Amino acid sequence: MGNNSQTQILDKPVISPEELLAHWQGHRLLTRKTIEAFPEDKLFTYSIGGMRPFAELVYEFLGMAVPGATGIATGKWQQWADAKKVTAKKDLLSLWDQATEDLNHIWPAIPVHRFQEEDVAFGQWPGTGISFVFYFIDNEIHHRGQAYVYLRSLGIEPPAFWDRG
Amino acid sequence: MGNNSQTQILDKPVISPEELLAHWQGHRLLTRKTIEAFPEDKLFTYSIGGMRPFAELVYEFLGMAVPGATGIATGKWQQWADAKKVTAKKDLLSLWDQATEDLNHIWPAIPVHRFQEEDVAFGQWPGTGISFVFYFIDNEIHHRGQAYVYLRSLGIEPPAFWDRG
Repeated sequence: MGNNSQTQILDKPVISPEELLAHWQGHRLLTRKTIEAFPEDKLFTYSIGGMRPFAELVYEFLGMAVPGATGIATGKWQQWADAKKVTAKKDLLSLWDQATEDLNHIWPAIPVHRFQEEDVAFGQWPGTGISFVFYFIDNEIHHRGQAYVYLRSLGIEPPAFWDRG
Repeated sequence: MGNNSQTQILDKPVISPEELLAHWQGHRLLTRKTIEAFPEDKLFTYSIGGMRPFAELVYEFLGMAVPGATGIATGKWQQWADAKKVTAKKDLLSLWDQATEDLNHIWPAIPVHRFQEEDVAFGQWPGTGISFVFYFIDNEIHHRGQAYVYLRSLGIEPPAFWDRG
């Protein structure tokens, strides 16, 4: 049973910004483990059914996370684009780790009302701040699920879905 | 820009229970479209890399959604189990639609403090109510992403990821 005071309950009836960031970073850590599980060459080339290799999907995640959180924090959106491409797993992991730090840095600067405020993400997609955050997280989960099939079809066991710590 | 009053902001700094249900039901509608996209036989049999056919994953979603929301609402948890098995797509869709109705019915009965309260889901997994809801949603997104690869490898275009209405 919890020990929440009434004040805490009023401040975060469902989830607080800090908890939402921790949830996202837990997923991002699992995505990092999924990147690590790929053989170097397969990360950039392996595909099933004409779908994108996992590295291409990771560029998409990177293109959304820090630029998206920055847009939610400031109301200023850059044009949406994938992250810059790299050719080695270690360089992709470096981009990932930099984004992890940047996201932790930007997040506390999001004014709390921005989660409920309507805006247009990257000048293209209307919604509330929370809807954008959910889109970024859910898109990462969705495409990472695809990567699990790539790994299994290569005979590689993916990290456990619940292993986010 | 939004028109939230200060009161609304205090009531739902990040997301309200009603918005969280709508988010989940949007994902559940996309999962329904994914079930529909499968050829009848492939839904129950098709696999890549030794992973479960999509129907088996849908039983898992069904085993979590209504029983999980009931546990969060009441603090009383049944033993966790997949939903009962069926053999036709229309019967799986009927189970799905019943769960959609049941979830809408149960959700408003969740006392708001339960989202932040610690409990043990299905008597097995410790966490807060919100962590359980996220697990149920995220698990569905994850395995549905897997189903997208099944569909693509069968030459079938999956529903658009953003199509939740």
